Amino acid sequence: MRHPLLVPDLRELIQERDEHALREFFAPHHPAASAELLDDLEPDEVLFVLGLLNGRARAEVFSYLEPPLQDGVASRMERNQLAALVSAMSHDERADLVTRLPEERTEQIFPLLAQAEREDIRRLTAYRAGTAGAVMTSDYATLPAEITAAAAIERLRREAPDRETIYYCYVVDDQRRLVGIASLKDLILAPPARRVVDIMQTEFVSSQVDEDQEQTAQKLMEYDLLALPIVDSDNHMVGIVTHDDVLDVVVEEATEDVHRMGGVGPLENSYLETSFVTMWSKRAMWLSILFVGEFLTFSALASYEDAFRAVPALVLFIPLIISAGGNCGSQSATLITRALALGEVRPSDWFRIVWHETRMGLLLGVTLGILGLLRALMTPEDKLLNVPLARLSAVVAIGVGVVVVCGNLIGATLPLLLKRLGLDPALMSNPFVASLVDVTGIITYFAVAELVLSGSY
Amino acid sequence: MRHPLLVPDLRELIQERDEHALREFFAPHHPAASAELLDDLEPDEVLFVLGLLNGRARAEVFSYLEPPLQDGVASRMERNQLAALVSAMSHDERADLVTRLPEERTEQIFPLLAQAEREDIRRLTAYRAGTAGAVMTSDYATLPAEITAAAAIERLRREAPDRETIYYCYVVDDQRRLVGIASLKDLILAPPARRVVDIMQTEFVSSQVDEDQEQTAQKLMEYDLLALPIVDSDNHMVGIVTHDDVLDVVVEEATEDVHRMGGVGPLENSYLETSFVTMWSKRAMWLSILFVGEFLTFSALASYEDAFRAVPALVLFIPLIISAGGNCGSQSATLITRALALGEVRPSDWFRIVWHETRMGLLLGVTLGILGLLRALMTPEDKLLNVPLARLSAVVAIGVGVVVVCGNLIGATLPLLLKRLGLDPALMSNPFVASLVDVTGIITYFAVAELVLSGSY
Repeated sequence: MRHPLLVPDLRELIQERDEHALREFFAPHHPAASAELLDDLEPDEVLFVLGLLNGRARAEVFSYLEPPLQDGVASRMERNQLAALVSAMSHDERADLVTRLPEERTEQIFPLLAQAEREDIRRLTAYRAGTAGAVMTSDYATLPAEITAAAAIERLRREAPDRETIYYCYVVDDQRRLVGIASLKDLILAPPARRVVDIMQTEFVSSQVDEDQEQTAQKLMEYDLLALPIVDSDNHMVGIVTHDDVLDVVVEEATEDVHRMGGVGPLENSYLETSFVTMWSKRAMWLSILFVGEFLTFSALASYEDAFRAVPALVLFIPLIISAGGNCGSQSATLITRALALGEVRPSDWFRIVWHETRMGLLLGVTLGILGLLRALMTPEDKLLNVPLARLSAVVAIGVGVVVVCGNLIGATLPLLLKRLGLDPALMSNPFVASLVDVTGIITYFAVAELVLSGSY
Repeated sequence: MRHPLLVPDLRELIQERDEHALREFFAPHHPAASAELLDDLEPDEVLFVLGLLNGRARAEVFSYLEPPLQDGVASRMERNQLAALVSAMSHDERADLVTRLPEERTEQIFPLLAQAEREDIRRLTAYRAGTAGAVMTSDYATLPAEITAAAAIERLRREAPDRETIYYCYVVDDQRRLVGIASLKDLILAPPARRVVDIMQTEFVSSQVDEDQEQTAQKLMEYDLLALPIVDSDNHMVGIVTHDDVLDVVVEEATEDVHRMGGVGPLENSYLETSFVTMWSKRAMWLSILFVGEFLTFSALASYEDAFRAVPALVLFIPLIISAGGNCGSQSATLITRALALGEVRPSDWFRIVWHETRMGLLLGVTLGILGLLRALMTPEDKLLNVPLARLSAVVAIGVGVVVVCGNLIGATLPLLLKRLGLDPALMSNPFVASLVDVTGIITYFAVAELVLSGSY
């Protein structure tokens, strides 16, 4: 995907202020391709290149830059320059930029914008992050119901350059309430004299402006749409969420889930952009909770001190046994959490899941139990002291089996429980399952040991 | 999203064979909404309802059903019925269905299809899963370069009902080589007499048919496109991949990463659709590898037997200390793996990452070390035996700190190492990091203990 002209050459052209060559170079590129090349440069250099492009191209390339670079370039722009840029950007992109600008900067440029633009930005920046309103754009085409298909196409032709998409047209009444949707395909296929009201779809999917962005994304995905209309509580049309925004939402939500499952609170920025202190606090909080939870392993072990002082060989298998349960619990927690996120299973499927995971746990317990047995049979003579090898091996094999069954069930049921309580199942991060299984594992292992070895020490 | 008419009512209508009511009910629904209601019914019931719809609506609703239900319904259809359905389905959906049909069934219906359809299905089913070719469709609109915008729109109007999208038109020469792309927006905006060759974009992004689907998805996302053209090695147009297919690819790849990180080999089907034996083999393989790896903890502990037999209190802190390192390693492995998957960091950033994670590990080590110290200071008198409380507490605090620093670095560097070796960083599942950290943790903890307690036992 990289252009053969390498970035150092580009940098040279900028240092030589070779405006002609730079214009020639960037003219035929897609804005996303230009932005990819600029992403490796310094804000000053990017500012120089952007200055060579015309207003619309400049705004498009700027929109594709990484947010931190956008901020760096914006901070170096003249007040007039920045206002012109904001004015030329697409509605949702500029709202995101303004949200990140320092307040005094916003105050500088707002007087230079048209009133309609100011209001549009205020409206789009008003919604809480994570809602449909925060990802929507106000760049959509509307049509009245009573005009003909030919008139509608003529109207789109006039308005098209300003709209993010003209492939779906939103039919609104005089109160701007959404009454139907006509695709450009429908308009083109219809006889020119047919009225929009007779062409439009009146059964359509929409989202409320305060709906969770994940739900909005799922609707768009389920119906394979290019864009989803966003309405307020009175069904007034306020924006659209487009397929590319939904892709961003899907990737963002997957990252959040992965981070939660790895025991990190979700981050708002990317790994390298997150500040050291924020990262520390998010990580330290979870680690501390898990660490304090793990204190229970101390108490569990303390109550079996007699057993492992009499048979020190039991200690040698502790990490092996509790990690087997923890790994098995991580697996089932991962499977169920992801299946819940994708809607493949629901909390009401709990019986089916528990039945499935009980059998699976038993089979996995037997598998690992056999491996554990083989390892225990190889315990060196000098570690055995006063306990027969066969008995110790039986303890390890049975211990592994029981711990795996328990760990597997804990991992499978906790996400279901969290979901039923209305919490995010991914919150039950795998390390948390592992901690719980550690305690359970120690208790079951030593309970088995006391049972099997009773009388032999 | 559920329709107020509940599923039991629907079932009743089907049992009463109330064709009129069922037709009335399904007519105004979007095919995806109809399919959602049908997904809860039995294949026989679905077959009955589908029989009431006209050919095109039937094919659309069928396409939105879950694959196992599609298979169940298809297996109950007459030969003629199935051929008509396949013929009416969209090109990529029908190729997916045919891939899943039993061979004798395919042989039954192929003679009933038009030759062009047979060839199209053969072509689309020929590509390996995971490539651009396997997700593409052949339902796209092409234009010759020399016709006018008005003629192009007229042509689309004729062909449109058969095309998955007419919003991008692919301009091909007489050898079907791709020479440009014209969006419907461009065609509508252009003066009607302008020729397509003067309207089309000649700088465009495309994918090779054997390219990894993940790369194809990333191109479409990066350029915010509705569809990406797929070409063969001679630049002949062979298909398009649309935005909705890319959404499916993105979700599928995220699921694969999540499963790998949770220590499950990626599954081909959803949780409930995967057979018991397949699930067992995928899970058991990873668990066994991890379990055998964990055997090292036995050896590590065995070499410190003297220490913990002299000071049994040391045993009480083993799970606490190794889990602290494991959790910290899971966090850093998760962060780096996800950042690599999103392209936020590259293996060449290793120095920056190691520096960042060293400082982070130190800070986290101090944080958890303090908590460990507090816990150790509360050790009951009767557990101490021959070791002073202050010394034992120092061992725990220092042990936790050192183990956390090591665990954090192991978690951060292993994904980088795997990526550099050309492997999937997500393969370094968190449980694997945890196993490695367990061994390291035991060794460092007891090394610290021997150092601090030397002479006191």
